[in-house]
Amino acid sequence: MAKNKRTAFFISDGTGLTVEAIGHSLLAQFRDQHVEQVTLPYIDSDEKVQQALKRIEQSASESGLQPIMITSIVSDKIRLQLHKSSALMLDVFESYLTPLANLFGRDPAQSVNVSHGIADDRRYSDRIEAVHFAMDNDDGRRVREFERADVILVGVSRSGKTPTCLYLALQFGLRAANYPITEEDMDSTALPKILRPYRDKLFGLTIDPRRLMQIRQERRANSRYASMEQCEFEVRQVEQMLRRAQVPYLNATQLSVEELATRLMSQAGIERRVD
Amino acid sequence: MAKNKRTAFFISDGTGLTVEAIGHSLLAQFRDQHVEQVTLPYIDSDEKVQQALKRIEQSASESGLQPIMITSIVSDKIRLQLHKSSALMLDVFESYLTPLANLFGRDPAQSVNVSHGIADDRRYSDRIEAVHFAMDNDDGRRVREFERADVILVGVSRSGKTPTCLYLALQFGLRAANYPITEEDMDSTALPKILRPYRDKLFGLTIDPRRLMQIRQERRANSRYASMEQCEFEVRQVEQMLRRAQVPYLNATQLSVEELATRLMSQAGIERRVD
Repeated sequence: MAKNKRTAFFISDGTGLTVEAIGHSLLAQFRDQHVEQVTLPYIDSDEKVQQALKRIEQSASESGLQPIMITSIVSDKIRLQLHKSSALMLDVFESYLTPLANLFGRDPAQSVNVSHGIADDRRYSDRIEAVHFAMDNDDGRRVREFERADVILVGVSRSGKTPTCLYLALQFGLRAANYPITEEDMDSTALPKILRPYRDKLFGLTIDPRRLMQIRQERRANSRYASMEQCEFEVRQVEQMLRRAQVPYLNATQLSVEELATRLMSQAGIERRVD
Repeated sequence: MAKNKRTAFFISDGTGLTVEAIGHSLLAQFRDQHVEQVTLPYIDSDEKVQQALKRIEQSASESGLQPIMITSIVSDKIRLQLHKSSALMLDVFESYLTPLANLFGRDPAQSVNVSHGIADDRRYSDRIEAVHFAMDNDDGRRVREFERADVILVGVSRSGKTPTCLYLALQFGLRAANYPITEEDMDSTALPKILRPYRDKLFGLTIDPRRLMQIRQERRANSRYASMEQCEFEVRQVEQMLRRAQVPYLNATQLSVEELATRLMSQAGIERRVD
């Protein structure tokens, strides 16, 4: 914990992923503040609360700045203990459970981890099955399984197809395959023959040639593959191919994997398979 | 939208993943309510707000029940338009930006998408590199790269190693390899020779034999591989092996991929590589 630097603690009795995401997007509105961000997951016992409180007070006294706590704590008891700290506390459950309880006319369950879909076997199996599908169908490995795919991503090598497919599988249980458009496919701007039967499942990723060059340079520095000329040629050919075949596509240059996945679903009208 | 069923809308000007996660955990506290959940991402224009409002009012009139909106909207203008709906509106930015602005003594940036790490090239490359590492090092494929791994997951086939590795890569930029303990490794309860140099990087996954059997039955029904006897034998051997070598492990039976990843990091003291 740096001196003169404020710390934001994201505290949860679960994974901490949700409060962390909330915290990131809130603090992004105050970029010039350079707040140190610390996630403390699984704070679900007296001992862990005490450790967390100690860490928070230490940051307060070392920096001389009031810490921030963004918390998602189901248990009233643990939440009250955290309230004892000197930090600014923003608790998701506290803010929203009361209005929801009023709406439903009943008290919340107060059971920790109820949110994590424990023993939700079907959902788990579907996601895992989708992950294995994405692994097996990466890089055009098994064209014969394209029949079973929900979506088939196409684009030049290193345009972001693989991580997007895996994210679609993990987060939404979608069976996402991908097929790299390689130089052999670029003699013509017609879709490669192998893809034609699946035109309705295709979705393209394109990328700024300069960014593509950067990414490829990290992989194979000073190769022809990573040259500006080659990157420009490939991107131009693939964009023409996608437009000509009227395959929808996204430019991946400025987008995170999460954004690529959700924008693609929204643009292509693909529904998730698991919640 | 079903009749007599209340709908909760998760509305965002970005991916919607954060409000969706908040919504899921809040509504999980009211399980008996059977609320239909609908995510509306990228609501960032007048036209899209109007479409969203129409959908919300339609759900209200068809069900006769007040809808819920959990929203994360940076723009004041769009937020005010949503306020016109008849739904109960819980807005993350509205609830928390004011206290944060007071603390920092300045106004929030009000820039949509600022939260998505646009053009954060380093972070993107690290995650992508980690994803490719996980793919290349799945299923013990390239033992020679274990040297570069942050963690090596070990466990029986279908204990959840692959999705956990991919999640660690995508979410935290960690280089996660995995190695399946197969029957040949089970003659002894000593660690397989190949793993011994990396003992400090190992983390075990174990699973309830009954659940393992279910998962394997879906893959290869009625095989020896999926028999109760075989599952019990493998799990017992691997647990003995992990205990004997003092390799930390988690039981994957009741945990989601997100929980496995975050608990593992917390238990093994592994720090994320990207925020």
